[in-house]
Amino acid sequence: MHPHFKPGPLPLSMQLTPEGKLKHFLSTEGLPHLLLHDIMDRAEQFVTLPAKQQKKAPFLRGKTVMNLFFENSTRTRVTFEIAAQRLGADVTNLDIRTSSATKGETLLDTVRNLEAMNADMFVVRHEHAGTAQFIARYCAPHISVLNAGDGRHAHPTQAMLDMFTIRQKKGDFAPLKVAIVGDILHSRVARSQIHALTSLGTGEVRVIAPKTLVPAGLDKMGVNIFNNLDEGLKDLDVVIALRQQRERMDSALLPSEQEFFKLYGLTDKRLEATKPDAIVMHPGPINRGVEIDSRVADGSRSVIMEQVTNGIAVRMAVMSMIMGSMAGGAA
Amino acid sequence: MHPHFKPGPLPLSMQLTPEGKLKHFLSTEGLPHLLLHDIMDRAEQFVTLPAKQQKKAPFLRGKTVMNLFFENSTRTRVTFEIAAQRLGADVTNLDIRTSSATKGETLLDTVRNLEAMNADMFVVRHEHAGTAQFIARYCAPHISVLNAGDGRHAHPTQAMLDMFTIRQKKGDFAPLKVAIVGDILHSRVARSQIHALTSLGTGEVRVIAPKTLVPAGLDKMGVNIFNNLDEGLKDLDVVIALRQQRERMDSALLPSEQEFFKLYGLTDKRLEATKPDAIVMHPGPINRGVEIDSRVADGSRSVIMEQVTNGIAVRMAVMSMIMGSMAGGAA
Amino acid sequence: MHPHFKPGPLPLSMQLTPEGKLKHFLSTEGLPHLLLHDIMDRAEQFVTLPAKQQKKAPFLRGKTVMNLFFENSTRTRVTFEIAAQRLGADVTNLDIRTSSATKGETLLDTVRNLEAMNADMFVVRHEHAGTAQFIARYCAPHISVLNAGDGRHAHPTQAMLDMFTIRQKKGDFAPLKVAIVGDILHSRVARSQIHALTSLGTGEVRVIAPKTLVPAGLDKMGVNIFNNLDEGLKDLDVVIALRQQRERMDSALLPSEQEFFKLYGLTDKRLEATKPDAIVMHPGPINRGVEIDSRVADGSRSVIMEQVTNGIAVRMAVMSMIMGSMAGGAA
Repeated sequence: MHPHFKPGPLPLSMQLTPEGKLKHFLSTEGLPHLLLHDIMDRAEQFVTLPAKQQKKAPFLRGKTVMNLFFENSTRTRVTFEIAAQRLGADVTNLDIRTSSATKGETLLDTVRNLEAMNADMFVVRHEHAGTAQFIARYCAPHISVLNAGDGRHAHPTQAMLDMFTIRQKKGDFAPLKVAIVGDILHSRVARSQIHALTSLGTGEVRVIAPKTLVPAGLDKMGVNIFNNLDEGLKDLDVVIALRQQRERMDSALLPSEQEFFKLYGLTDKRLEATKPDAIVMHPGPINRGVEIDSRVADGSRSVIMEQVTNGIAVRMAVMSMIMGSMAGGAA
Repeated sequence: MHPHFKPGPLPLSMQLTPEGKLKHFLSTEGLPHLLLHDIMDRAEQFVTLPAKQQKKAPFLRGKTVMNLFFENSTRTRVTFEIAAQRLGADVTNLDIRTSSATKGETLLDTVRNLEAMNADMFVVRHEHAGTAQFIARYCAPHISVLNAGDGRHAHPTQAMLDMFTIRQKKGDFAPLKVAIVGDILHSRVARSQIHALTSLGTGEVRVIAPKTLVPAGLDKMGVNIFNNLDEGLKDLDVVIALRQQRERMDSALLPSEQEFFKLYGLTDKRLEATKPDAIVMHPGPINRGVEIDSRVADGSRSVIMEQVTNGIAVRMAVMSMIMGSMAGGAA
Repeated sequence: MHPHFKPGPLPLSMQLTPEGKLKHFLSTEGLPHLLLHDIMDRAEQFVTLPAKQQKKAPFLRGKTVMNLFFENSTRTRVTFEIAAQRLGADVTNLDIRTSSATKGETLLDTVRNLEAMNADMFVVRHEHAGTAQFIARYCAPHISVLNAGDGRHAHPTQAMLDMFTIRQKKGDFAPLKVAIVGDILHSRVARSQIHALTSLGTGEVRVIAPKTLVPAGLDKMGVNIFNNLDEGLKDLDVVIALRQQRERMDSALLPSEQEFFKLYGLTDKRLEATKPDAIVMHPGPINRGVEIDSRVADGSRSVIMEQVTNGIAVRMAVMSMIMGSMAGGAA
């Protein structure tokens, strides 16, 4: 496929039009903070559409959105599908893993073929880092690419729904202390969150993780690293738990589930170290009793369900902004 | 998941709003006969939409219907999908069996997540009795739940399309003799039919089955039990065959396919015992030569294909009534 | 299922209404060349819809299109799904292979059931030759059937998108020399192309293939057979490569991939034998280095991507013509 393609430094020009508008959404890395706020401003409009009224905002009427899922993820696929439907798009789901027609075909040939059907937008999920970026670089100019998760690299819509939730609850990012807790090493979500948080001028960004799960070079990203949960939680405004991949537990790098919970699991008791009004976030789906205690997940600090609601609004925001840019900036 | 949850007595207040309008559709048990007639009256409007004209009736425009199928059933999924499409809804199919994201997640966490995406309606199919009821009890107030089959418990839209078909063909239920033939013990369809038939004041409701396939306590439901087919068929107006689950054949409870057909299979010869204008029904898909002879299935008594057509209309009726109730009774 | 059904001579009356309008689209065999040009004329309207504008042409609004795929083909399914969506239809995908409900049910019972849901159009893909024809013969009169590939028999929409592409590039068929290269024996695409090319009065139709891959009786179809690539390519206007099924390679009938490429693979060098402005076509997905060299596939002669774009337009054309015929010829 593209064995030598590494998601290297992503020039801003790959995600933006010459006028500085969003063309692809591949990574939060390097995006101007004004653009991140534009996304959140627009998401604000969509999230306040009354839940039980007409939820349609047909910015994508007559457009074709293709969900290219090389890696299975029913939940993520559904969030993009619903966002596109509410924008009035035609949505087609391609579960490329099971497509025998693509066997022996190169990734680029698959992409060329789908773009020739006059698709307008590809939502790409792939186990290899850099796939969305690769497709964006080589696909036809009329196509926009949204990264729905590529290997350990990035998951920018997840990061933006997190930012949007923080802004909703806390307002300005400057005075905030925010920590990400868990397996940073394998997490595309953590990477995208760190880029967004620093771009938005967050007061302090921390990660809290065992030494074996902190990637090399993280300190150069302007992040404070804690290996001890209680110390890391001190005075926080926002605690972001990561999902622990159960299949990685008990490996060389990771302690058992029980031990992980004892050392890094979020409980009411340990959260007393944070500010009294600190919020707790999680990208879902949660592992109760592994990275988070049930009382925390269902408690008053938790904004996990609001994150899900915001996830639809943020994806609608990104999709509609991109379509506006492609049509000449009208939307 | 919810191992201790049993579908116990279903209070009417779980399916109806305080104003007595339909909020969830979980079971035909205990529903007032006037409400059952309301469903059929509305289905009448949908079924008479000319087949080749505009089939859309956009009562659900801008609404999001999620088909949550924990158990595979392409056919049932398609009937709900088509009904929702014709009502103008956005439909999303979730094949939850194959979703790795839900592994290790509780059923309630899955539900919470989907409701946070501002879904309006869940169509639920699950191998465990009580699942739809469980979800209806614990989900957010803006969600309505339709039971598309839960274990051996209930399949209320199937029962209502059967009632609608009987009303179309026979009019009033009071003078009718109706029998259900086959594996009553394992049949959610039979349970829902019996509740609906008795609620609608059917003159006589019979079941015809081997002793081993009659559930205990059935006699208390106001049903006459026959173990002999010829006796049970006598003077019937309506004969409802059940689908025999082939995987259950040759077990301790059930005779072989051949023996079953000899004892309980519907043939033209044996149907002579019924009234001359008796109709024959089947929920599909049929096993020719097991519970029903091909000449009966394709013959003049058979209304099996009309049942399928009515199934779309009844599902549209239930969905649109529920949406009307949720919006304050407008529809 | 229908073991004794062979796709025999297809009477014109099976595909056309008494007024000569398209009712089903099962095969290109025997269709009048004027009708083939009608399809291409209409496709012309759809293909020139500007790519980035409103792509909707709601000729099928309120209609229900069912994709009945008994054989997996994500790519073909997507082309029909997109065509139907752009025509405003409701589309339902049925992956019948995995449907347990249809186990033990006859093909006709499955069809009867789906037609009773007031479907308007079945798009049928099946590994057995004749299935689409069989369904068209026995289904209800309000249903139209599109053959999306049946065994080795026919794939008429693929053939028509090829004809449309040739007409776009070359205009009149009369002066053209056209060759099909590869495994003719197993190819439904080749069969449908030959029928269409001869009906359209193509100057010369050739096939180029090893002797083992030429079906008996092909010479009676008005086709010139070449076993040598260089001789067959001489003075061609159009070269159509077929996809080689890799699973058939190294069998008794076929040489290895390397050997096949050496003998029949299209390279720039060998294409020098054709006319200078000859075009190269391929139904996709391509096997680079087997039937076609990468430089040819991506080179200036290749119209492979235009074929894909035209594929959507041709399917929209066929679907909208059929719906027009069914509604009394209005569209």
